[in-house]
Amino acid sequence: MDNPHADRVKRIATLRTASGRKRQGRFLIEGPQAVREAVTCMPSVVTDIYVDTQADPNADIIDAALEADGRDHHSIYIHKVTGRVLDHMSPDAQSIVALGVSSAMEKAATDLSTLTHATDHPLIAACWQVRDPGNEGTLIRTADAAGFDALVLVDRCVHPLNTKVIRSTAGSLFHIPVISVGTDEFFEWASSADARVWAADIHGTRDQAPYDLATLVQSSESMVPAHQPLALLFGNEARGLPADIVEKADASVKIPIYGKAESLNLAMSGAVLMYTVAMAQHQE
Amino acid sequence: MDNPHADRVKRIATLRTASGRKRQGRFLIEGPQAVREAVTCMPSVVTDIYVDTQADPNADIIDAALEADGRDHHSIYIHKVTGRVLDHMSPDAQSIVALGVSSAMEKAATDLSTLTHATDHPLIAACWQVRDPGNEGTLIRTADAAGFDALVLVDRCVHPLNTKVIRSTAGSLFHIPVISVGTDEFFEWASSADARVWAADIHGTRDQAPYDLATLVQSSESMVPAHQPLALLFGNEARGLPADIVEKADASVKIPIYGKAESLNLAMSGAVLMYTVAMAQHQE
Repeated sequence: MDNPHADRVKRIATLRTASGRKRQGRFLIEGPQAVREAVTCMPSVVTDIYVDTQADPNADIIDAALEADGRDHHSIYIHKVTGRVLDHMSPDAQSIVALGVSSAMEKAATDLSTLTHATDHPLIAACWQVRDPGNEGTLIRTADAAGFDALVLVDRCVHPLNTKVIRSTAGSLFHIPVISVGTDEFFEWASSADARVWAADIHGTRDQAPYDLATLVQSSESMVPAHQPLALLFGNEARGLPADIVEKADASVKIPIYGKAESLNLAMSGAVLMYTVAMAQHQE
Repeated sequence: MDNPHADRVKRIATLRTASGRKRQGRFLIEGPQAVREAVTCMPSVVTDIYVDTQADPNADIIDAALEADGRDHHSIYIHKVTGRVLDHMSPDAQSIVALGVSSAMEKAATDLSTLTHATDHPLIAACWQVRDPGNEGTLIRTADAAGFDALVLVDRCVHPLNTKVIRSTAGSLFHIPVISVGTDEFFEWASSADARVWAADIHGTRDQAPYDLATLVQSSESMVPAHQPLALLFGNEARGLPADIVEKADASVKIPIYGKAESLNLAMSGAVLMYTVAMAQHQE
């Protein structure tokens, strides 16, 4: 296919918008890394791959797709296209894009209660009303790298099939479950699963100042419960967590600021908190 | 001033480009947080503030500027302008911008040897050939928050007075010294200051595999030298550090990956490494 003005090219390009994604029930996966992880880890959600015939560093992806094709009565169609066509599908194609079926992705996502049963004492990262796709994708990537069992999107975060979110996850969207829930549903799960919820928050509550992360992980080991589900809850990038949500958490935790900076941004806070907890648990 | 097409407005707008910055010898500071930190922490580099007369959450900044004005024979001019004028100066003005003098900023920056003498055992973050302004600014902000004594830009990183860098530092550019050096100069300083250099690198050298960060900080305390200068060196966002630079470092350190992600991005790695080291040192 070498006509960048073909209807199909235009349809694929509109998957970069929320309305296009909803109308078509599909989502767009851009670039070699994300397409490779989708085809390798969740081939059943992928229906089509568009690959630049001139760029050949994608041979391993095509091999993986051919291997998955036909398995479980599921087909993956591979379309060879020109670079010009790919440019019109997405400026971030980097020689390859794939289409996924949104409903298949949603079906594949575990829900919170299933997760609690599947894993002994899951480690969960949750974010509340996150509105920046780059932040959300980076949190998913960090949660994956730090060995968390799932990332939970609480109360109208960015849709996880947003193209920029997927790009920022660098493939991690296809590695760990990303689960969307409401605020009440989240705390009901925490209560029924006997999970501890730590709110990332610098203010704490009237009754309880926030714990300092450095002190927390190095003090009594019961503070980092290795045998109880633990959820780290992060707030909106501009406003953090509202007081009523911090009240519902078991404790609030702040990252110490040793210099003059006012704060860390959301993605940095996520990296520091998730890794500090993960490294502490892995040492036990 | 309410004419967005005035020459002065156009001149200020071109400070967002490298050529405009060089030609005028000035740089642009956008938004309340960065302007506040510049006026509070380094008033001698600021010459002019342009503030939206309709937006009043900036009163404290103007007070700080008026207080600094005239001190040490240095003047800060405050210009009241309309929102439309500010929009033409910068889409990221958020109701206030300031102009700084590049040479004053360079003069204010400590060099590496001065730093070693000023602080007993400085903790330094360094990055090599970083090319993304957002990453560089975020590393500066993280270094500040984690209490590092300086951030060193090794071998042609993004210019620290780049407008996007300043924006991403959220004011931290005015809190800690940001020092530009060549690769040889960096290692000569490390040698003469008896500083340990840890390269953030997943490969290590032929003779020495990288240390695992989690093991490193929890093992013998001599691995995190509290009484010796320590420099963490990060590589380029796409290529990391080349082998010959890793060879020159005292050790290489990798962040453990507990999940399926291939890696963390540069800014995340910086946050995890800097904070792990900072929290370990503060516990001692």
